[in-house]
Amino acid sequence: MLETIKELLANKMFKELKKYLSLKEPEDIAIALNGLSDEDMVLAFRLLSKDVASDVFVDLDSEFQEKLINLFSDKELKEVLDKLFVDETVDVIEEMPADVIERILNSVSTNQRASINKLLQYPDDSAGSMMTTEFIDFTEDMTVKEALAHIRKVGKNREDIYTGYVLGKNRLLRGIVDAKDLVLSDSKTKITELMNENIVRIHTLDDQEEVGKLFGKYYETSLPVVDNDGHLVGIITLDDAIDVIKEETEEDFEIMAAVTPNEDTYLKTSVFKHAKNRILWLLLLMISSTITGAIIAKYEAAFAAVPILVAFIPMLMDTGGNCGSQASTLVIRGLAVDDIKPKDILKVIWKEFRVAIGVGVILSLANGLRIYLQYKDLSLSITVGLTLIVAVIIAKLLGGTLPIIAKKLKLDPAIMASPLITTICDSCSVLAFFTIAMQVMGI
Amino acid sequence: MLETIKELLANKMFKELKKYLSLKEPEDIAIALNGLSDEDMVLAFRLLSKDVASDVFVDLDSEFQEKLINLFSDKELKEVLDKLFVDETVDVIEEMPADVIERILNSVSTNQRASINKLLQYPDDSAGSMMTTEFIDFTEDMTVKEALAHIRKVGKNREDIYTGYVLGKNRLLRGIVDAKDLVLSDSKTKITELMNENIVRIHTLDDQEEVGKLFGKYYETSLPVVDNDGHLVGIITLDDAIDVIKEETEEDFEIMAAVTPNEDTYLKTSVFKHAKNRILWLLLLMISSTITGAIIAKYEAAFAAVPILVAFIPMLMDTGGNCGSQASTLVIRGLAVDDIKPKDILKVIWKEFRVAIGVGVILSLANGLRIYLQYKDLSLSITVGLTLIVAVIIAKLLGGTLPIIAKKLKLDPAIMASPLITTICDSCSVLAFFTIAMQVMGI
Repeated sequence: MLETIKELLANKMFKELKKYLSLKEPEDIAIALNGLSDEDMVLAFRLLSKDVASDVFVDLDSEFQEKLINLFSDKELKEVLDKLFVDETVDVIEEMPADVIERILNSVSTNQRASINKLLQYPDDSAGSMMTTEFIDFTEDMTVKEALAHIRKVGKNREDIYTGYVLGKNRLLRGIVDAKDLVLSDSKTKITELMNENIVRIHTLDDQEEVGKLFGKYYETSLPVVDNDGHLVGIITLDDAIDVIKEETEEDFEIMAAVTPNEDTYLKTSVFKHAKNRILWLLLLMISSTITGAIIAKYEAAFAAVPILVAFIPMLMDTGGNCGSQASTLVIRGLAVDDIKPKDILKVIWKEFRVAIGVGVILSLANGLRIYLQYKDLSLSITVGLTLIVAVIIAKLLGGTLPIIAKKLKLDPAIMASPLITTICDSCSVLAFFTIAMQVMGI
Repeated sequence: MLETIKELLANKMFKELKKYLSLKEPEDIAIALNGLSDEDMVLAFRLLSKDVASDVFVDLDSEFQEKLINLFSDKELKEVLDKLFVDETVDVIEEMPADVIERILNSVSTNQRASINKLLQYPDDSAGSMMTTEFIDFTEDMTVKEALAHIRKVGKNREDIYTGYVLGKNRLLRGIVDAKDLVLSDSKTKITELMNENIVRIHTLDDQEEVGKLFGKYYETSLPVVDNDGHLVGIITLDDAIDVIKEETEEDFEIMAAVTPNEDTYLKTSVFKHAKNRILWLLLLMISSTITGAIIAKYEAAFAAVPILVAFIPMLMDTGGNCGSQASTLVIRGLAVDDIKPKDILKVIWKEFRVAIGVGVILSLANGLRIYLQYKDLSLSITVGLTLIVAVIIAKLLGGTLPIIAKKLKLDPAIMASPLITTICDSCSVLAFFTIAMQVMGI
């Protein structure tokens, strides 16, 4: 699609491009436009119909949004902003410099400005900063007919018209009515008869990660956000929740790979930023792995006597590290999706211990046998075999428990993933190896 | 919640439990029931109102579903099944033994049985096996009024009533109408004026991973599934798509930790299965890490001459491994969310090369300086410093390219994650280390 747009632009086939763009979804147009040069992007954007332009605008990279706003006449800016929902405008504003923000705030109505300013006050990553203040509100005395008429009246400017929020005195949230039930019920039915009073509520200061989990569990098209006194202040819609779920997943992957999280895509992130995001962890892990080196240095006499011992260090380190990261990844994910709770720590230890025995014995037998066949050296074979069992047990127990301990210490369990666990397990494996070697081989 | 249910059951406070359960969401009840013993689960299930029972039933573990079906009278079974959508019934059936399946098929209507049999024929993990055949279909000549009347008539048995599919001759999909537009438009409007003809279609044999991506991009409540000739055969609803997104994410995490994917939760998976899911990768990686050992053994003369060299092996191995897994994780995720395409391989190489130079030089200087200060040995300092730069470059290039190559070979890029990349990078680091040491230190 990107190639086609470039071709049509290069050949100045604007009419054909206009037609082509009219057949595409706004989400796809935005992805393609984000791949164009500044000027081509502006040219292509101007060819979009007004209906689609706002939807595409929301999905553009923020530098392109800024570029466009600076090129827009006041009238054009107003046209685009008028079609945005309050939370979308806030998303755009959050990435803009002060002068552009001022121009945006001057282009919206007084009501919208008040809503925008309110949403901007919530902390980043809180439910408050995700929500929109435009929702369908019903009063308790409404009938189905009145409720449907109300939707028809105000629905054009509402992000989710399929969920109606029934409010009591002081905007206290009483219940929720699905449009499905309104459509399928008799027009004279009181909406209080249809409303669900078991409400899943989000609080304004809840973390966005929690919000993502709720949507993943209840599959609603929107959920209500209430303040401390239970008054409805906004709703969060599914599209924003899906974005959060995706964002949080990527963040987990990045932390688990010892990379500082970054919202940009891989290709859009500059070399400098990539290096910056990786170097701190690498330095930290490098320092901790010198501990393993120090342990080895301490046993210089041992491998001076039996040099072949050194050749087993990589295999023992790798196996320990891999066992540890298997356990830690499974536990980190279990914690992330609430399958494992911190109070399950003893269950995890018991399970990992038994898994470690099983896995350790198999690895140990396989390796011990190979070594015996290759070197005909029983004590070497026993040393490596025993070390494997010990190393696997330590690795599985560390991998299983450290993420839970991190969570108890209010740290992100994901930091206890592969790289850190591997480094910790390495020291343990090497220490176990030389201790056992000294005993078994009588060095 | 689980504790409360247990307490109330233990005290035989069934009336109070019934009241308590009536205040909870089906999703939460199912999670709690899955934690009970067989008998308690059955007791608690019988206390649920009929409306909620089916929703809870769908979310129960399959062994509990089987248990309940065996206890149900034919009438009870029919009541529960009647409230399920076809795709939900299929999900239940897929986990049951043959005799239970037969009983289920005998309890549903002839129409339902035909639909179920059709869905059962699609391959696992295909769009066809996820879809439901119950959707809202419109004909092209309908007005808004007729369309709304049609929704009222058939809506009760439809999973998504907010999206209407306009069908032409032979069920050819013509367009899609949102309920929002029906509600907000004049009742005499023709639905062909409201329908969107730019349709995002899913094909019956598309992989479920693709389906998840489409929902993550377009945020629709349902998407149409068509056969090879463009005839509408079913729809996939958002709740199933969210489940797939979650499942695919967990699968990626597991593969990236060198664990065979498993659909059960960590705590529900038996020790035997945990061990089975981990041992194959561990054996494979153990074998490959003996290559690193073999390389070391080859250089016995070098570390016999300069024993301190051995102490740097863990640090070099870890740093190489970590650099490699940082790059591979970012690229694997980029591929998974389509931010990186296989054709971007040269861009990735060029970016990783520059990042590696930056990161490598910093790590090298930090370490070289430390070694010089500690050992006052310039050639050792230069050897380790140079090795670090070389090892980082190799690791970043391998980490960046191997996932893309795996994708080109139609393998899952996720296998090129931390454990495998670490093992490969280890060999390279150790080989570089001894080669450089021989040259610089003149061993």
